[in-house]
Amino acid sequence: MTAPLTPTLELAFDLIRRPSVTPVDEGCQELMMRRLAACGFEVERMRIEEVENFWARRGGDGPVLCFAGHTDVVPTGPLDAWQYQPFDVRVDEDGMLCGRGAADMKGSLASMIIAVERFVADHPQHKGAISFLITSDEEGPAQHGTKAVVERLRERGERLDWCIVGEPSSTTLLGDVVKNGRRGSLGCTLTVYGKQGHVAYPHLAKNPIHLAAPALAELAAEHWDHGNDYFPPTSFQVSNLNAGTGATNVIPGELKAVFNFRFSTESSVEDLQQRVSAILDKHGLDYHLEWALSGLPFLTQPGDLLDAVAASIRSVTGRETTPSTSGGTSDGRFIATLGTQVVELGPVNATIHQINERVLASDLDLLTEVYYQTMVKLLAC
Amino acid sequence: MTAPLTPTLELAFDLIRRPSVTPVDEGCQELMMRRLAACGFEVERMRIEEVENFWARRGGDGPVLCFAGHTDVVPTGPLDAWQYQPFDVRVDEDGMLCGRGAADMKGSLASMIIAVERFVADHPQHKGAISFLITSDEEGPAQHGTKAVVERLRERGERLDWCIVGEPSSTTLLGDVVKNGRRGSLGCTLTVYGKQGHVAYPHLAKNPIHLAAPALAELAAEHWDHGNDYFPPTSFQVSNLNAGTGATNVIPGELKAVFNFRFSTESSVEDLQQRVSAILDKHGLDYHLEWALSGLPFLTQPGDLLDAVAASIRSVTGRETTPSTSGGTSDGRFIATLGTQVVELGPVNATIHQINERVLASDLDLLTEVYYQTMVKLLAC
Repeated sequence: MTAPLTPTLELAFDLIRRPSVTPVDEGCQELMMRRLAACGFEVERMRIEEVENFWARRGGDGPVLCFAGHTDVVPTGPLDAWQYQPFDVRVDEDGMLCGRGAADMKGSLASMIIAVERFVADHPQHKGAISFLITSDEEGPAQHGTKAVVERLRERGERLDWCIVGEPSSTTLLGDVVKNGRRGSLGCTLTVYGKQGHVAYPHLAKNPIHLAAPALAELAAEHWDHGNDYFPPTSFQVSNLNAGTGATNVIPGELKAVFNFRFSTESSVEDLQQRVSAILDKHGLDYHLEWALSGLPFLTQPGDLLDAVAASIRSVTGRETTPSTSGGTSDGRFIATLGTQVVELGPVNATIHQINERVLASDLDLLTEVYYQTMVKLLAC
Repeated sequence: MTAPLTPTLELAFDLIRRPSVTPVDEGCQELMMRRLAACGFEVERMRIEEVENFWARRGGDGPVLCFAGHTDVVPTGPLDAWQYQPFDVRVDEDGMLCGRGAADMKGSLASMIIAVERFVADHPQHKGAISFLITSDEEGPAQHGTKAVVERLRERGERLDWCIVGEPSSTTLLGDVVKNGRRGSLGCTLTVYGKQGHVAYPHLAKNPIHLAAPALAELAAEHWDHGNDYFPPTSFQVSNLNAGTGATNVIPGELKAVFNFRFSTESSVEDLQQRVSAILDKHGLDYHLEWALSGLPFLTQPGDLLDAVAASIRSVTGRETTPSTSGGTSDGRFIATLGTQVVELGPVNATIHQINERVLASDLDLLTEVYYQTMVKLLAC
């Protein structure tokens, strides 16, 4: 590549060369804030505990479109496994932008900034407002990042109609998939109580493994719901199961199972909790459940935002996008609690969190154009 | 107790004050060997690895009655929990012989020696032979103790018709129970293979916990046999069950279960192994089984030995003894492989392996008399 870098790639280079492993920001947000302030955004730093966040807003009354994302990246893993060093950003001979964060999600951040700069230049009197919600802790505990910022915005009644999260949603080609929702995640630690004893005297003990096995079998076989047009059926998985003292002649006193639901909008947290208890009760178990809700499911139904995003992808790439709710969780779940329509739209996610993370450089220029077109559809006068 | 000690108690004192925690012998066997040599026994030391054992024999051709036992004792546990220090042997004001090993089984060893000394004095021309098989590792790994000595005896074709093991078989009163057999013990480690993955993508993984649960439930519910007149039904217990990486979002790649059969003479090792495999196969599991046979069941049916023991108990104590095969394993399982009739007969086992181990001192004198009478019935001319 001897051609000069496009503005999007130039900014992506500036962001990727900063080793901003969670929760360190390394000046990425400063860079973004300067650019946004220069085109009329009011910028507000929101450092919460050790996490850098900022909120920026430009415009007046009317509908608000928010760009959301994170400047932190996951650790590199072994440096000698990388073809090029992870923060020594470059475009290789195949036209791939290489470096940690290229796909997740500094490429998207660069596209957002460039798209907004152009849109504001072309439409200085646009409708409503544009905002940014950026954190340096999406890949970490994520307690003092987007979640905490959203709480502040909620408290002051900030309006937030639409949100595009820059998560790498595409699977093979830019824009082939957008995420219009995510399943909920509900975790639990189950303890089943028995009575410890000697294996030679089982009549004096109560083996919690024997007691729990039929209930675990039933939980694993249960159909929790059928999903719907937007969500696959709710799934249940036991991730950890432990019982025993280590001694081979001792019947243990208790069993612990850690399980997780990824649940659709067809099941509520309360439903799932009640149904688990009902199955455990049916098997006559003496047990305790410790629930932990990681995130409620959210869904953005077809409407303004999804229509604008799909039309923009079609006009820029010629592709029909597929809305999907599969995969893990993202910060979109926090923003959706404000009643916001949320869509995740970013580059191809094939290499995220891996060594040699990379993304087709020209895809980022297309992404800039898709973000731009989306703003035109939603906010141009 | 100001009365002088009886010969049995005097020897019990000498043995108990030696802190012979497995596999240390502390001169206990030397003491026994000297006494036996003095009344005509040929004594043979059999040190195997770190374990002291001896074999002693007196007599000629004809049936052989063997006294078997161990000089090692289990650890004391916290010394400050003992009313009297564990090796500071005494008879307390309630007439209890107190000290580690009083019940398991230095009391029995003393009774055996005194009974044999008297019998040999009274019946110098007795029929057949009397022997002793003593180890210092019954409470430990038990690989270089009785098991190894029995292999040597088998190799040289040593005859061994009857064996009395001094294990504390009595439950409430001396002689109320003798053990005329023990269940077998068969252990196994089961590994069930799945495919590791992310809980958000269960269709790409195979959860070994979900796969194994119905099979474990079926194994736990299975009736393996109905037992018989001598044995309770075979029992199956899972002692340890482990799966999971610790992470709550990872489906583990495998599950491990450690289980144990205590089995009657109605089930063979091969039967049990085949039936476990059949259940695992029925559930379509990909698995591996690592079997470990700890001991085959043995049974001494009513006959010369059991009759002699029961009659002696009746004549000494006035009690009808109850033959039983319950409880854990003992070295009797090794001796029984020689085709020997084996009975365990010793004092009350209520305090064995506990702090303040003790036994009614006068019971040991009764036990000496029971052993003596048994020899009279089996070997007197």
